Amino acid sequence: MSTQKLHIGIIGAGRIGRVHAETLAFRLPESRIAAITDVNREAAQAVAARCNIPRVAESSAEILANPEIEAVLICSSTNTHADLIVAAAKAGKHIFCEKPIAFSLETIDAALAAVKGAGVQLQIGFNRSFDANFARVRHAVTSGEIGVPNLLHIISRDPGPPPLSYVKVSGGMFMDMTIHDFDMARFLIGDEVEEIYTAGAVMVDEEIGKAGDLDTALIVLRFRNGVIGAIDNSRKAVYGYDQRVEILGSEGSIATGNCYPNQAVVSGAKTVYKDLPLNFFMERYTESFAAELRSFVTAVLEKRTTAVTGIDGRIPVVMALAARKSYDERRPVRMDEVGG
Amino acid sequence: MSTQKLHIGIIGAGRIGRVHAETLAFRLPESRIAAITDVNREAAQAVAARCNIPRVAESSAEILANPEIEAVLICSSTNTHADLIVAAAKAGKHIFCEKPIAFSLETIDAALAAVKGAGVQLQIGFNRSFDANFARVRHAVTSGEIGVPNLLHIISRDPGPPPLSYVKVSGGMFMDMTIHDFDMARFLIGDEVEEIYTAGAVMVDEEIGKAGDLDTALIVLRFRNGVIGAIDNSRKAVYGYDQRVEILGSEGSIATGNCYPNQAVVSGAKTVYKDLPLNFFMERYTESFAAELRSFVTAVLEKRTTAVTGIDGRIPVVMALAARKSYDERRPVRMDEVGG
Amino acid sequence: MSTQKLHIGIIGAGRIGRVHAETLAFRLPESRIAAITDVNREAAQAVAARCNIPRVAESSAEILANPEIEAVLICSSTNTHADLIVAAAKAGKHIFCEKPIAFSLETIDAALAAVKGAGVQLQIGFNRSFDANFARVRHAVTSGEIGVPNLLHIISRDPGPPPLSYVKVSGGMFMDMTIHDFDMARFLIGDEVEEIYTAGAVMVDEEIGKAGDLDTALIVLRFRNGVIGAIDNSRKAVYGYDQRVEILGSEGSIATGNCYPNQAVVSGAKTVYKDLPLNFFMERYTESFAAELRSFVTAVLEKRTTAVTGIDGRIPVVMALAARKSYDERRPVRMDEVGG
Amino acid sequence: MSTQKLHIGIIGAGRIGRVHAETLAFRLPESRIAAITDVNREAAQAVAARCNIPRVAESSAEILANPEIEAVLICSSTNTHADLIVAAAKAGKHIFCEKPIAFSLETIDAALAAVKGAGVQLQIGFNRSFDANFARVRHAVTSGEIGVPNLLHIISRDPGPPPLSYVKVSGGMFMDMTIHDFDMARFLIGDEVEEIYTAGAVMVDEEIGKAGDLDTALIVLRFRNGVIGAIDNSRKAVYGYDQRVEILGSEGSIATGNCYPNQAVVSGAKTVYKDLPLNFFMERYTESFAAELRSFVTAVLEKRTTAVTGIDGRIPVVMALAARKSYDERRPVRMDEVGG
Repeated sequence: MSTQKLHIGIIGAGRIGRVHAETLAFRLPESRIAAITDVNREAAQAVAARCNIPRVAESSAEILANPEIEAVLICSSTNTHADLIVAAAKAGKHIFCEKPIAFSLETIDAALAAVKGAGVQLQIGFNRSFDANFARVRHAVTSGEIGVPNLLHIISRDPGPPPLSYVKVSGGMFMDMTIHDFDMARFLIGDEVEEIYTAGAVMVDEEIGKAGDLDTALIVLRFRNGVIGAIDNSRKAVYGYDQRVEILGSEGSIATGNCYPNQAVVSGAKTVYKDLPLNFFMERYTESFAAELRSFVTAVLEKRTTAVTGIDGRIPVVMALAARKSYDERRPVRMDEVGG
Repeated sequence: MSTQKLHIGIIGAGRIGRVHAETLAFRLPESRIAAITDVNREAAQAVAARCNIPRVAESSAEILANPEIEAVLICSSTNTHADLIVAAAKAGKHIFCEKPIAFSLETIDAALAAVKGAGVQLQIGFNRSFDANFARVRHAVTSGEIGVPNLLHIISRDPGPPPLSYVKVSGGMFMDMTIHDFDMARFLIGDEVEEIYTAGAVMVDEEIGKAGDLDTALIVLRFRNGVIGAIDNSRKAVYGYDQRVEILGSEGSIATGNCYPNQAVVSGAKTVYKDLPLNFFMERYTESFAAELRSFVTAVLEKRTTAVTGIDGRIPVVMALAARKSYDERRPVRMDEVGG
Repeated sequence: MSTQKLHIGIIGAGRIGRVHAETLAFRLPESRIAAITDVNREAAQAVAARCNIPRVAESSAEILANPEIEAVLICSSTNTHADLIVAAAKAGKHIFCEKPIAFSLETIDAALAAVKGAGVQLQIGFNRSFDANFARVRHAVTSGEIGVPNLLHIISRDPGPPPLSYVKVSGGMFMDMTIHDFDMARFLIGDEVEEIYTAGAVMVDEEIGKAGDLDTALIVLRFRNGVIGAIDNSRKAVYGYDQRVEILGSEGSIATGNCYPNQAVVSGAKTVYKDLPLNFFMERYTESFAAELRSFVTAVLEKRTTAVTGIDGRIPVVMALAARKSYDERRPVRMDEVGG
Repeated sequence: MSTQKLHIGIIGAGRIGRVHAETLAFRLPESRIAAITDVNREAAQAVAARCNIPRVAESSAEILANPEIEAVLICSSTNTHADLIVAAAKAGKHIFCEKPIAFSLETIDAALAAVKGAGVQLQIGFNRSFDANFARVRHAVTSGEIGVPNLLHIISRDPGPPPLSYVKVSGGMFMDMTIHDFDMARFLIGDEVEEIYTAGAVMVDEEIGKAGDLDTALIVLRFRNGVIGAIDNSRKAVYGYDQRVEILGSEGSIATGNCYPNQAVVSGAKTVYKDLPLNFFMERYTESFAAELRSFVTAVLEKRTTAVTGIDGRIPVVMALAARKSYDERRPVRMDEVGG
């Protein structure tokens, strides 16, 4: 057991910031949180007390100026991500940044250039490839267990739509929600998508439509290697968080089921039933949130490249732009039409 | 128990003709097979012996001329369907005809006009809506159990591709295989499709591609009522016949699993496993083949409209044409572009 | 396809008699029902009309005197079984008799002696070994797939208790219901039981207890080869007919699930559920009822020994007697204490 | 979030001691480990380094003499449990002690008397009632979801037998392994067992038999409230750790499945399979080990009675003694024959 510890500063003490702080504090002996900050100082103080963080910083600038801090976690709102990446890179800090980097490719490219210039590590918070189910599916592909992949399905449905106020600043469903599925598609197949076709609709809440977004979509992906994929998205599945994938390969198929709070089945007088799946991402992806941070901390300590790099943060944004363009124009859209 | 019996002539004693003969002979006391014919006379004789059919007719003409026969089953090759429908209609026989009626809409329309003119009943051999699984899914839609349907998935994969000789006369995968899924899509949702987008490929056998067909496809359906559907087709699933559907509705979802030869699960030293699903349509849809005939016989005897009429035979052909056009032109195709 | 047909007479036109008649008439071309009889003549007439049986006999004696008849099915009430076996044997008829032969070993032994003396075939109506699930489990044992069996579980629960009037003439739960599980235990393990211990109770309906019977039991079996088994019986499972088995072997385990009317799973707002299992034996064991008759008819035609012989009808009765003695005396009871 | 922390000393740094130390250190902010000790000093030092424990004590006596320490975890070998309980009680420490307290009821009773005299809290390390699956089953009983319980099944099989050296000091399978199932039986039904019947055998390894122990058993429990239960034990299930329960109640049944490392199902060319269940208790019961400590720490801090008290540690020992006596004497044994 190494005694080396990575000293970390956390920018943002909202929901995901708190989750990451608890992981670092209670499950990753290889890390030490030196300071935390948030525009809501009370939130930062609460997390600091909970997680034994010695310092609540006045600002992100204070975090970045702290010479003891080697790496930062950027868990603040999306509109601040790119600027903070640039600033952190200039300060020579390694960076873990929540997704998406930004909604605009120019902004993303500027941030990635700063990271490259500074020679620091950058990991994007796409956590799902760290999930045991999806890792098992990926293994079935890389090991040849199911032969050559032909068809991919991703079912990704939220238990309910976010507040309308959030929808309006979210960048839209493709940028906010499907972006994780784009990440998954690339991870599972291990190749890039060339063309996207979107059939989308407003079925859950017409207010979402009035805000210019959609809430239901079937997105067809054509990969360079010929694989055809489908992403099924809905902002509302009354039974909870629905997160499944399936791949048909030349030698077999692999499919994952949802995760449940227990393995009990009740046979009653009317039906045979089980409890609903784990409701949302905090319950469903608990372990993958921890695993992505463990991966980041280890990579930085061991001077290895992180598992989910800047380009892995950029490409799903391109895919989200293509999906939206296809939805708007009702035709297949090639990635190079939007992605530069 | 009624003692009335429907007297039936069977044209075609191949695989499906034999299945239907056995159903009529051994499971439908309401029917009586008066005669059978086939271009291969030996095949007809074997079925007649097996099923106690009193007469092996020389030709379909003899069947149609037989005044005792009230209804015919057309189980001969596809290229003969339309002519036989016309001839049977002129002879005043009620008709059960295997799918598809024909590959050309003009031919189909002429056949349907003959049926209409003669005032006889016509049922097309789309059997899957008679399957207990899919009937349960349809019930979940009509009863409101899952609310308003939003998204539909149909997984339909064969255990292996047919012989290349068959592929060449099959009308192509959409007309031969997907046509059942188009029928299912209409049955499950209870509405018509307006637009189809096809992402297809040759992944199973390049000889199929050389023959001008494809073997793998993901087909997106847009229904008039807004539902978005996806059909996943492959000519080859090494684990057997894969036939599943799933509908997400506003109040829940319903999904069917495959059918297995037994309910046993073995926990071994390497995996926890069960036997492969029922391998192909003869095993998987045994009961629905019987149920469609029961439905036909009963409808004719009771002078009710059949469950799957001529228009239900025509529309899936239009969908197959649209799917192919979309595949060729790599763009969404509206049904009215091809369907008249 | 052989054209030889076994000519059969049916004695008893109640529920199971009708099922067997339909199987012979509509699914077994190798058989021909020559006549049927029942103390309730109307019942016999209805089955005859349904199944095209040419003759409704006045009595079982008429059936046995009919020289055309080669084999009889004894489907009358239990108290007539042994006498009819003796009479049929004397008449030189092969015999298929519903279980149990009788409640008394003396009566059974006399019947079996008559069968032996006459040199006719006898098959007892223990149908479950013909079920695909249990046949699969047996295959896992005989093939070595799970190694040497160590522990056996049989879950066998009815959807609800029979009428009290039936309970009183049934011979008790062990003789009426568990007897099938004793048959299954012998079939699955392929060896005999030496000792039985019963923990039983009246939990479903105290009127059953007042009638001297019980309705709930856990029965421990010790086989000669060392296997330890448990049978779990209840007269009432509100969710339907519960029929499962599990064997732990040295190299793995095999377990069967219940059979359901469809494979659909609904994800609703409160639970994820499926429909209840097939409710009772007529639905659950439809195919095994047909398979046992096919086995009988084929064995007689081909002059092979039947699959379930007289001794296979006797031993489960001994087991039922031992189970009852153990329940009464609250101690393990060896088979040789009751079985002669 | 309370800032009160319970100061704890740990006696024993073996496998379970290390698990408990990690839970306290990384997952229970309400606790603080003041010191740890082990007869193997290196083991204690490794855990101390890993879990930031400030002090490696020379002996358990040093731990008990430390006035800062309010509670102790006794994780040393079974033969030391009772003496350490007595010593800890005299020292006024609250106690969490691994199971079993001892193999002899006299020793147990003396220890419990010391605890009672000192007025300290005692929790026994029966962790399974803290598992989400079994808690769900218990909830189905207490909530009335399945009505009145009638029949209970506990399947409890290890992936493989322990080393023979361990078998010899383990107290035997009933005391070492089944004791957890006895705990579960009481927890799930919420009542006491009156009588036990054991059918047992040596099937896994004859060396275990030579050592005077057995490795396979079916144990029948009769509860005071009439429920009949069965425990199925094997020291070897080649597919991994098999831990399931099922209760049949008057209004339904509830059954739990095993826990798997992922929810993936692979359809291959020979079988449809999933990975083996989690292999053994450290993987399977990870969360329940944490939950039992959380429960203990919270109970002590809040001055509530612990969830699993001294009597809950004694009764399963009585049950193990009765199970053994039944096995030896091949007859049902009442608890009051052995339990005082």
